[in-house]
Amino acid sequence: MDAAEFRRRGKEMVDLIADYLENIEQRPVYPDVEPGYLRSLIPEEAPEEPETYEDVVKDIERVIMPGVTHWHSPYFYAYFPTANSFPAMLADMLSGAIGCIGFSWGTASEATLVALLAARSRAVRMILASDPQRPETDITSKLVAYSSDQAHCSVERAGMIAGVRMKKIPTEQSDKYAVQGETLRRMIQEDKAAGLIPFYFCATLGTTPSCAFDHITELGPICNAEKIWMHIDAAYAGSSFICPEFRPLLNGIEFADSFNFNPHKWLLVNFDCSTMWVRKRSDLIGAFKMDPLYLKHDHQESGRYFDITFSCYSQSIRFRSLKMWFVFRMYGLKGLQDYIRKHVELAKEFESLVRADQRFEISADVVLGLVCFRLKGSNEVNETLLKRINNGRKIHLVPCQLSGQFVLRFAVCARTTESRHIREAWRLITQLAEEVMQELPN
Amino acid sequence: MDAAEFRRRGKEMVDLIADYLENIEQRPVYPDVEPGYLRSLIPEEAPEEPETYEDVVKDIERVIMPGVTHWHSPYFYAYFPTANSFPAMLADMLSGAIGCIGFSWGTASEATLVALLAARSRAVRMILASDPQRPETDITSKLVAYSSDQAHCSVERAGMIAGVRMKKIPTEQSDKYAVQGETLRRMIQEDKAAGLIPFYFCATLGTTPSCAFDHITELGPICNAEKIWMHIDAAYAGSSFICPEFRPLLNGIEFADSFNFNPHKWLLVNFDCSTMWVRKRSDLIGAFKMDPLYLKHDHQESGRYFDITFSCYSQSIRFRSLKMWFVFRMYGLKGLQDYIRKHVELAKEFESLVRADQRFEISADVVLGLVCFRLKGSNEVNETLLKRINNGRKIHLVPCQLSGQFVLRFAVCARTTESRHIREAWRLITQLAEEVMQELPN
Repeated sequence: MDAAEFRRRGKEMVDLIADYLENIEQRPVYPDVEPGYLRSLIPEEAPEEPETYEDVVKDIERVIMPGVTHWHSPYFYAYFPTANSFPAMLADMLSGAIGCIGFSWGTASEATLVALLAARSRAVRMILASDPQRPETDITSKLVAYSSDQAHCSVERAGMIAGVRMKKIPTEQSDKYAVQGETLRRMIQEDKAAGLIPFYFCATLGTTPSCAFDHITELGPICNAEKIWMHIDAAYAGSSFICPEFRPLLNGIEFADSFNFNPHKWLLVNFDCSTMWVRKRSDLIGAFKMDPLYLKHDHQESGRYFDITFSCYSQSIRFRSLKMWFVFRMYGLKGLQDYIRKHVELAKEFESLVRADQRFEISADVVLGLVCFRLKGSNEVNETLLKRINNGRKIHLVPCQLSGQFVLRFAVCARTTESRHIREAWRLITQLAEEVMQELPN
Repeated sequence: MDAAEFRRRGKEMVDLIADYLENIEQRPVYPDVEPGYLRSLIPEEAPEEPETYEDVVKDIERVIMPGVTHWHSPYFYAYFPTANSFPAMLADMLSGAIGCIGFSWGTASEATLVALLAARSRAVRMILASDPQRPETDITSKLVAYSSDQAHCSVERAGMIAGVRMKKIPTEQSDKYAVQGETLRRMIQEDKAAGLIPFYFCATLGTTPSCAFDHITELGPICNAEKIWMHIDAAYAGSSFICPEFRPLLNGIEFADSFNFNPHKWLLVNFDCSTMWVRKRSDLIGAFKMDPLYLKHDHQESGRYFDITFSCYSQSIRFRSLKMWFVFRMYGLKGLQDYIRKHVELAKEFESLVRADQRFEISADVVLGLVCFRLKGSNEVNETLLKRINNGRKIHLVPCQLSGQFVLRFAVCARTTESRHIREAWRLITQLAEEVMQELPN
């Protein structure tokens, strides 16, 4: 394919994309295929001779689409949103064409790990400064990190990767599933008494299960006093902080050592795009710096230059900032704020539908675009309801567990979700609930 | 921007991209700006109101392009190639539109780390099986990993992240900078005698400095016998193995526990796209598995399903396989083989130009698309030559160090590089060499 053909095919692809997105709600949101369905649809080996572009395009519907979960369907309410916008797509096209190896971040999971590694390296340095003879392996074997029992599973994984102890801090429904200062303080004291070295706390603003906010105004001063690195994971909720009315949720940020949120979740920047701030960049550089000759250049020591690959583990990173730039400019702050507010409003609308129905209950405060709800009754009846909902393939939701209860998560995700989709989703849910309750009386 | 405007703007963007790529060689390959140049060109804050798309597009040339290194210019000979092809771009457009959170791999650096973590976890399990009382921290503090002194810097970084000892195996010019079986065997014996536990060896096929190939037919059996995980990093060279004539370079692969190469380097699949094979997938899953309720689904235990996020540290991954699929189909194996062969031929052409000039020498065997060369003489004269070459901004090269010598790396990178570009590059290099040698007689 030469540039001339690309001009033609690229324009067809633009139309194909616009068609796909304009008609996405006519597709079943969740695929009805078994793992491995693809195997029989594609050849065992790559083709010997080139195929025609027409054949490839024909196979998009035949081969690919049947297996796709349509994350941008207005019937998608699972996990959290993954962003999608026309300006971001345009920027991504250009970014692909420039195809330079740029600088930016991976995902929130990576940010959590990067912060943990930097914290580990800082803790080891601090202890060696006062006790230079102590073996490093002895120090790391005593390190202990903390996060909420509501934190994303990638926090626990970060602990496994870094080879350090990671303790979960219990939360309570009565505290809205937020980590309390007193609980952290007690755990730190117990661990120090047992000879351990507390060094890292991952706070979450907007947890995955229920969008809970850890009390960082209480937790931050404790961490600072104990020289514990406080990382804030605001992967989802972070986007909402562009609205003044949600900004108070960020109070306490001044105590953080690092902060991360994902514009690719809720700020209209296509996946993937995750941003991280760090209080003291030398802490990051210290944990990752490598200096081979083939990566040396004139600006390395100038101070104006920050080589992000010194501060994460991937050597090569895509030019992701381009799509943020397109999105910020094409929507403007107001457009982005409107977008966030509309999602929150739609969540509130869903919440009031749930509250108006005596058979259901709300399981956690609705702060942003996530509604946690359930049928009053057993976990079994709720599991059956969710299964029924997802098998219908009209809307898609995932569950979570809160205080031992099986809870349904309704996250407003798609850019195109409107009030009518919310009402239709609720009609479907109540209809299936009716069926389930007749079959499984509590 | 609605779908209707996206149809219009998308088509303009397709033309902009085609124009950019068709005329890329008219641009200076390397930017002539200082770090921070962008700060004065962009506002301090995101715009309050949306801007027009025209304004954004105008700024591509004004703001972005002056800072871009044009990796796809036929005058780019630095690092290794980063792939770029029209089918891959089309697929990436579609992938952005579908925007689902898919499954695939990050980069070779990540593969190295993932393999190291899996190896660490396997080693700990094996030792605990025979000595269940031994503290895990005692085991990890004794672990030792190996790689060539020619291995990519990310291998060393992987050791830092995993918190394990990483030893560099010395290589010699006389052995073509390849790790020899005998050297590894001796280091293992010494380390075991000192109470250490060898557990991981990262072999490289096609090193970054000189495209050297470690002798895996010798090294593999040693690793297998010692229960050392052998990971093979073939980030660049891996693409060439689609040609039968380069397949012998892969001999010994049967001893590997894991293998990685980057289609985004040399297989026409746009960045990023890196693939990894592992002998026993349970070794990976064991190192990373997490099971929160919101990620549970019906197929998890079916055996037909492999959740790749159980085996790497990012939770969310882009739908990268789509662009491999487009590229394999649109080029066919033959087209891809032709592409690899052409680059190797161009490298051989450059090599013969160098060899024909008595003032220069070739510093390492030319096996694939990389030519390592230098002026006979001091490191200083070669450093000056390289600086002069890159300051000219017509072509771009990076250096490496081989046996203490400062060496210039000429890597055939761009999809559009032709013989005339190679000859023009050589003319430029010899002309600058002339100048440098007059100023700095050796």
